[in-house]
Amino acid sequence: MSNLYDFTTLHTILGDEGLLTAPQDMVGYETGGRGDKGKAAFIARPKNTAEVSAVVAACNRLDIPLIAQSGNTGLVNASIPNHSGTQGILSFDRMRKIITIDPDNRSAHVEAGLRLSALNQSLEQYNLFFPIDLSADPCLGGMCATNTGGGRFLKYSGVRENILGLTVVLPDKEGTILKLGGALHKNNTGLDLKQIFIGTGGQFGYITEIILKTAPRPQQSATALLIPNEDKHVIPLLRAFEEHCGDCLSAFEGMSANAMSRALSHVKTLHNPFGRDEIPPYAILVELSRPYPVQDDETSLPEKLERTLAALWDAPSAPLRDAIIGDPVKLWALRHSLSEGVQKSGKLYAFDISFKRGDVMAFLSLMHETLPRTFPNITICDFGHIGDGGVHFNLVIARDDPRATDPAFEPALRQWVLDHVVYDFHGSFSAEHGLGRKNAADYERYTAQEIKDLSRSIQNLIKSN
Amino acid sequence: MSNLYDFTTLHTILGDEGLLTAPQDMVGYETGGRGDKGKAAFIARPKNTAEVSAVVAACNRLDIPLIAQSGNTGLVNASIPNHSGTQGILSFDRMRKIITIDPDNRSAHVEAGLRLSALNQSLEQYNLFFPIDLSADPCLGGMCATNTGGGRFLKYSGVRENILGLTVVLPDKEGTILKLGGALHKNNTGLDLKQIFIGTGGQFGYITEIILKTAPRPQQSATALLIPNEDKHVIPLLRAFEEHCGDCLSAFEGMSANAMSRALSHVKTLHNPFGRDEIPPYAILVELSRPYPVQDDETSLPEKLERTLAALWDAPSAPLRDAIIGDPVKLWALRHSLSEGVQKSGKLYAFDISFKRGDVMAFLSLMHETLPRTFPNITICDFGHIGDGGVHFNLVIARDDPRATDPAFEPALRQWVLDHVVYDFHGSFSAEHGLGRKNAADYERYTAQEIKDLSRSIQNLIKSN
Repeated sequence: MSNLYDFTTLHTILGDEGLLTAPQDMVGYETGGRGDKGKAAFIARPKNTAEVSAVVAACNRLDIPLIAQSGNTGLVNASIPNHSGTQGILSFDRMRKIITIDPDNRSAHVEAGLRLSALNQSLEQYNLFFPIDLSADPCLGGMCATNTGGGRFLKYSGVRENILGLTVVLPDKEGTILKLGGALHKNNTGLDLKQIFIGTGGQFGYITEIILKTAPRPQQSATALLIPNEDKHVIPLLRAFEEHCGDCLSAFEGMSANAMSRALSHVKTLHNPFGRDEIPPYAILVELSRPYPVQDDETSLPEKLERTLAALWDAPSAPLRDAIIGDPVKLWALRHSLSEGVQKSGKLYAFDISFKRGDVMAFLSLMHETLPRTFPNITICDFGHIGDGGVHFNLVIARDDPRATDPAFEPALRQWVLDHVVYDFHGSFSAEHGLGRKNAADYERYTAQEIKDLSRSIQNLIKSN
Repeated sequence: MSNLYDFTTLHTILGDEGLLTAPQDMVGYETGGRGDKGKAAFIARPKNTAEVSAVVAACNRLDIPLIAQSGNTGLVNASIPNHSGTQGILSFDRMRKIITIDPDNRSAHVEAGLRLSALNQSLEQYNLFFPIDLSADPCLGGMCATNTGGGRFLKYSGVRENILGLTVVLPDKEGTILKLGGALHKNNTGLDLKQIFIGTGGQFGYITEIILKTAPRPQQSATALLIPNEDKHVIPLLRAFEEHCGDCLSAFEGMSANAMSRALSHVKTLHNPFGRDEIPPYAILVELSRPYPVQDDETSLPEKLERTLAALWDAPSAPLRDAIIGDPVKLWALRHSLSEGVQKSGKLYAFDISFKRGDVMAFLSLMHETLPRTFPNITICDFGHIGDGGVHFNLVIARDDPRATDPAFEPALRQWVLDHVVYDFHGSFSAEHGLGRKNAADYERYTAQEIKDLSRSIQNLIKSN
C-alpha cells in the first residue's frame, strides 16, 4: 500500500476489487499505446456512474489528481499517469455493459469501458455497426474523449457526429452527474453541453455512459489499390470517385512506399499486393461499400469499381499508372499494419496532422524537398486519410542514431515540422489522436491565446462548480 | 431618431447605411417568421466582422442589449426584439458574401448573412450543395445559431455536423473576435469552442463567418407516397427502406390527413396526389437520391423504388395499403406547403418536438386518444420527420374560438402537451427550431437545474471575459 494517500475513503467506495494499490496489480495500467510508461498512485475501478461520482468527489476533496483510462490504446499519453506517482487512474474496465440497443432508433446506450469490437459484435444481429474504423480496439469512453476519426471518416464522419447523449461526472467537489442529450437524433434545447466533453480527454469531466448512433452495416464492398501517375493526380482521383460512386465511396487512404515497405518487411503475415513489382511511390486504398446485400439486377460493387477505373484509364489527364483490385481483407490488413511496420523499423517520431484535402500532397512534397536539408538521414513514412485531409506523418531514424537519445532532438524536429503544418498550410497539429502529455507543448505553441484563455476559464468554472 | 440612446458612437462605426433608426426603416426587421412583432431601438448593419466587433463592444459598454438577426425566418422569436423598444437588432443583411468555395476540400467559407439558396446556386457548378433541406430560405448565420435540421437529416444530419469553422464575436466589452476551426475536416486540438455558438441563438456570441462542409449534389432521385396499413407499420417501413436502399434513402417524412387536407385547401398551386380518392389518415413521403447521374447499366432509382415497394407488397405483415409514385417536385411541394396550409386554417399552436424514432407513432396515438378529452375542438395537424424522430405537432382551433384570445390558454395547452412529450416519452420540447422567446418558459420547466446553472455560468463567463 502506498504511503502517499490514505485509501480508507476510496476503499469504502470501491471495495477490494475496485481499488488496486499493489505495484504488480497496477503495472498493466501504467503503459500507454506507444509504450511510454508512467507511475500510478492507485487504480480506481468503479462499477457504475454513482461510484465514479463518489470517487471523483472524494479525490477532489482530498486533492488527488485523476487520469481517466478506458481502452488505453491512445497514442498521446492522455490515459497514463506521469512519473510522479501522485496521480490515480480512474479505470473504466469494470464498466463494460451494453445497457440497451434500440434498432428502431438505430441507437445504443453503453458504458464507457465497452470495447468497440464488443459493441459491433452485439450490433451485428441488427445489421448495424458503429462506423468509426480504427486500427486499434479502443473503448467507447476513450473514443468519445479523443473524438477519434479513422479510415472511413469521409463517409461516416467522426465520433462527435455520431453521439446522441452522454452521462458525465464533473470534476467538482460533489462529482456532479450530468445526463446530456438522451437517445434523440434532433434535440436543440440550448447549449449542447455534451460537446464540451467530446475530444477533451477527461479534462472537463469523465464520460461514464454514451448513447450513440449506429449505421447500417456494409454488406457488400469492393476494394482496390490505385497507383497515381503523379502526386497532382491524387485529388482529381478522389473527386472522380466521389462523382462516380457517391455514397458508395467509404475509404480513400493514401500510403507511401516507405510505409508500405516497412509494413511488408516487419509484419510477416501480410500479403504483398505488388508481387514482384517494385512498390510504387504512393498508393491509394479505395473502398466502395453498400449497407445492403447485392440485389439481383443491380450493378455489383466490383463491377462499379471496374467501370470507374475504366473511365479513369480513358481520362485525358492520365491520372492512373496502375490499379490492383484485390481481396479487401488483405488490402485492409496492409493499411492497418502500416503503423506497426513503421514503429518496428526504427526510432519513430509520429505526427497526427491534417490539412485541407487539396493541401495534403503539397505538404508531403515540401517535406520531401526540405526536411532532408535540415534533418538528414530521416525517412518519411507517411500514410493517411486523403479523403478527410488527415496525415499520419511518421519520421524514422535508425535506433543507433545518436539523435535518438538526444532529448533536444524531438522538440526541435516537432517544432520545425509543425511550424510548416500550422503556419504555411493552416493545418492542424492534432487531427484525431487527441491531446495528451505528448503534444501538450504543441497545444501551447499553436493555439491562439484567447482560445486557450477561454478554454481554461471554462475548465476552471466546471471544476469549481 | 430615438431618444433612448445616443447614437454617436454607433453612427461613427456604421455610417448612414449601416445604422437605421427611423421607424419606417425598422419595421421590416421587427416581424418574426410566424408574424409576431417586436419593437427595435435601432438596426445595426455592420458590413464585416471588424464592424460587428466594434458594434458589440460599444453596445456592451453602453449596456444596450442586441438581438442577432440574419434571414429572420425563425419560428420561435429568437431574431426579433421584444416590445420594450430598448433592444437593438444586429442585422447581417450587409454580410452576404461567399468568401471562397474550395471544391477539392468540399468546403465553402461564407458570411453569416448569405442566403441558403444563394449558397446552393453558387455551389451548383461544382455539383455540390449544402445538404440542409428547409421549407424556408434562411441565412447561414441563423441556421448555425439555430442548428436547423430539416427534411433530409436522416441522410445528412444537421447543421452542427456540417460546420468546419466559425468566426465569432463574443458579447464582451472588447467584442473579442475568435476564429474557431478553419477548413479542416479532422481537427482535435482541445475544447471545440465553436460548438458553444451552434444552436444557442446568439446568446453566447455572434457568428459572423462560417466554413461549412458541402455534399455532392443529388443527380437522380425517385419519390413516392407510402400509405401504411396501420400506424404500427410506419417504423417497419422505414427500417425496410433503410435495409433495401441504404444511403440512397434521403427522406422519410410523415404527413397526417389533417395537415395534407389543409395544405390542399389553402395552397391553391398544389397538385392533389390522391386525385378523387379520400386523403389517407397518414402518408409518408419517401425519397431515394444519388449524387451521380444515372449510369448505363445500373438500376435506376425509380426501378429501385419499384422493387422495394414490390418486396413490401409481398411482405407477410402487409405494411402497405397503397403507394403512389409521383413527380418529386409536386410531392415535395405538398410536403413543403403543410406548414403554410396549417397556419392559414385557423389559430395555430405549434410544437417542434422530437422522440426516439420508435416512439413517434405511439405519441401521436396517445394524443389522438387523450387530447380531445382535455382540450375539445382542437384539430391535430401533425407532420414531421419519421426518419429522425422530429414531429411538427400543430394544433389548430377556429379563429373565433374564445380560447384563441385567452392569454391563459396557450401556456396551459403547451404544458399539457410537453409534459407528455418530456415526462412520458423522454422526448425533446425543442427539436430543430432553436430557443427563442416563444419557448423560453419550456426551457425553464424541462431543463435540469444543474444544466441550466452550468449553461448560464458559461454564458456569464463569456460576457465578462
